[in-house]
Amino acid sequence: MEPEDRHTHATMSVARIETLADGVFAIAMTLLAFNLTVPVLDPRLSADQVAAGLPGQIYALGPAFVVYSLSFVVLGVYWVGHHAQFRVIDAADRAFLWINILFMMLIALVPFSTLLLSRYPLVPIAAQVYGIVLTLIGGAFYLHWRYATKGHRLVPPSTTEEFILAVQRRILIGPTVCAIAVLVAFVSTIVSIFLYAFLVPFYIAPGSVDRIVFRVRRSV
Amino acid sequence: MEPEDRHTHATMSVARIETLADGVFAIAMTLLAFNLTVPVLDPRLSADQVAAGLPGQIYALGPAFVVYSLSFVVLGVYWVGHHAQFRVIDAADRAFLWINILFMMLIALVPFSTLLLSRYPLVPIAAQVYGIVLTLIGGAFYLHWRYATKGHRLVPPSTTEEFILAVQRRILIGPTVCAIAVLVAFVSTIVSIFLYAFLVPFYIAPGSVDRIVFRVRRSV
Amino acid sequence: MEPEDRHTHATMSVARIETLADGVFAIAMTLLAFNLTVPVLDPRLSADQVAAGLPGQIYALGPAFVVYSLSFVVLGVYWVGHHAQFRVIDAADRAFLWINILFMMLIALVPFSTLLLSRYPLVPIAAQVYGIVLTLIGGAFYLHWRYATKGHRLVPPSTTEEFILAVQRRILIGPTVCAIAVLVAFVSTIVSIFLYAFLVPFYIAPGSVDRIVFRVRRSV
Amino acid sequence: MEPEDRHTHATMSVARIETLADGVFAIAMTLLAFNLTVPVLDPRLSADQVAAGLPGQIYALGPAFVVYSLSFVVLGVYWVGHHAQFRVIDAADRAFLWINILFMMLIALVPFSTLLLSRYPLVPIAAQVYGIVLTLIGGAFYLHWRYATKGHRLVPPSTTEEFILAVQRRILIGPTVCAIAVLVAFVSTIVSIFLYAFLVPFYIAPGSVDRIVFRVRRSV
Repeated sequence: MEPEDRHTHATMSVARIETLADGVFAIAMTLLAFNLTVPVLDPRLSADQVAAGLPGQIYALGPAFVVYSLSFVVLGVYWVGHHAQFRVIDAADRAFLWINILFMMLIALVPFSTLLLSRYPLVPIAAQVYGIVLTLIGGAFYLHWRYATKGHRLVPPSTTEEFILAVQRRILIGPTVCAIAVLVAFVSTIVSIFLYAFLVPFYIAPGSVDRIVFRVRRSV
Repeated sequence: MEPEDRHTHATMSVARIETLADGVFAIAMTLLAFNLTVPVLDPRLSADQVAAGLPGQIYALGPAFVVYSLSFVVLGVYWVGHHAQFRVIDAADRAFLWINILFMMLIALVPFSTLLLSRYPLVPIAAQVYGIVLTLIGGAFYLHWRYATKGHRLVPPSTTEEFILAVQRRILIGPTVCAIAVLVAFVSTIVSIFLYAFLVPFYIAPGSVDRIVFRVRRSV
Repeated sequence: MEPEDRHTHATMSVARIETLADGVFAIAMTLLAFNLTVPVLDPRLSADQVAAGLPGQIYALGPAFVVYSLSFVVLGVYWVGHHAQFRVIDAADRAFLWINILFMMLIALVPFSTLLLSRYPLVPIAAQVYGIVLTLIGGAFYLHWRYATKGHRLVPPSTTEEFILAVQRRILIGPTVCAIAVLVAFVSTIVSIFLYAFLVPFYIAPGSVDRIVFRVRRSV
Repeated sequence: MEPEDRHTHATMSVARIETLADGVFAIAMTLLAFNLTVPVLDPRLSADQVAAGLPGQIYALGPAFVVYSLSFVVLGVYWVGHHAQFRVIDAADRAFLWINILFMMLIALVPFSTLLLSRYPLVPIAAQVYGIVLTLIGGAFYLHWRYATKGHRLVPPSTTEEFILAVQRRILIGPTVCAIAVLVAFVSTIVSIFLYAFLVPFYIAPGSVDRIVFRVRRSV
């Protein structure tokens, strides 16, 4: 482990964080679909009665499909974000590993909060638990970026302050809106859910950050 | 992040898409087997009664095994296809990441639609939901290729138009046949299921595309 | 995609097969533990009654733990074997991808056959389904090696015939013993299970094959 | 497979162990959240009664959340540890693969022991099963390091004895404390759980080992 090995080690470390995170994201995403329970009809029904009754049962899964899509896309937002951060972060230390573990511990709660919300879409506490999980995820993700960039701890010295702050602002909007939505749920759960959904197009749309983080092959 | 870093970054980006996709495919495939529920016999039965009753219960899983195999192979078809596309696509941008997330969101629905079909193999709506999911997957997969190749956006400039169009045609056959099968299910679910099954040997068989995408080591 | 790209492409292809396989193995292995159901005691019992009753319920999971360990190790055997084959196989074609998908389709059945056997350890059909799945896995694994090495299709030309045959013989022992065990289960399920268990130390022990496939760093 | 290929092969081997381990860790971690069961309220309740009853049901999940966090962090500790060992270990042989499989077999039991403990937090046997699993994990992890470093079997010759022993001591503290906690549970399950929890800050805090294993980019 001579000093010249440093770069290799740092790279490996970052690679394994990404592998674990990709695993947790993939599993949490795929398990979201388990909230879509296949209807079980009374086995004593005739074939015609089943054929007549099943469509209604499937249409009743509508709200669950909406919440499934919302949560999948929210996980997608953070997967893309995590992905984007690691295009800049190129080293890791022990504290940073633990911030990642905290982040994944919160990501792994999304199937739970999603099932809660799809089962009780009109109950304030369900919308609030959903929002608290998202607020904490956003907060952990902010911490992730803050820790890595503080004094250029885990990013190349060439990273500009302007870029670091632009990413930081973009990250903070998520937990801020979610925290407001948690409070709004005391008054109206519908408005609260709309606030969560509103974040999605905001994060999907490319920001000023993209000019730096994503470089389409052709344009260079 | 100097310009000369571009290639490394583009590669990483593509690598993480593949890792997430492989994770979602692996989980969706393995979870398909959860539709094969182990029979639970009445605990008050004697050992002889259990030994006599269990075989019948296992043979009754026959249709579920058929649907399991069909869905596994269908996921395999899209995994091979995704795999093949990334032998040409060598960069990614934000929109492309989101097309991938949409694609995975649909792939993650396959265990649901498979369980629905194996529980209600003779009910039109079950065959239709199964087919709608496949049609959407095929459509998203077409979009994936179209977006990446439009103006050689994410593929090397050397990729020929002829090749791009050959892949495109091959992809489009899947969602076209599935969309027809969804309509056919209004008349006959059996014919509909046969249409889905018919696609499998078509996609497993090597196409003209393979001459370019797969190169067996020896033949070079 | 000039000829000189061939090596890169072949390598990527092989890498993604390994990633998918590792995913399926990891999930199938981890899900085996789901067969260990946590006892649910009557909620009306007093704390003392629960404390008195729980140990017995946990000891009753003994056979399930044995079957869990057996299946985990069996999956481990095939994971190590798959791993070892890919230290020689360095290219892939479409047919080979499909052999891998077939292999994973069978691997994904192991949690099912394991739960069946741990629920009905004394019923012949359970031991037979368990054995049929293992026989098919062994057969698919033989096919995997046979296809890759036939005429040095996907292995380096320097691979010796002697080595190819040694690996082949080692692979064939598994499905042969399992097929015999399936027949033996008609007479005695206990003997049948012992035959499966007997294979484990055989495959864990290093064979003549290892001298070539594994090279401990120091010994070179 | 000429001698000069050795390094490549050893590296691949290590890489696939890490991939499988990351998969098992990611799945075990994500599945921990399945112990948090979403409350099912009587469907005949009015919307107001559901809104009034749900918060209490969610607060009742408190202990399950605590056990979830504890187990997630414990898995995180071993993931970080496994990660750290592989920054030194750079080769593998067959016995080492099997030590890894044993390690993962025990890791995959954590969701089971966690659910048991969160369902029966006050029953000695639950705290003991939890502790036995942790003791065995720690023991397997010790074996993992011992086997790899014995006579510098799978680590570079430059690895110092002092470093090897420092890691060894740090590893041994875990299973030692857990074994004590198992005995303590005969007297008090609360004290036993506190002992498990006490290990977490110990392992999260950087040790003397980190000066060698982790090198923050800037500090070099």
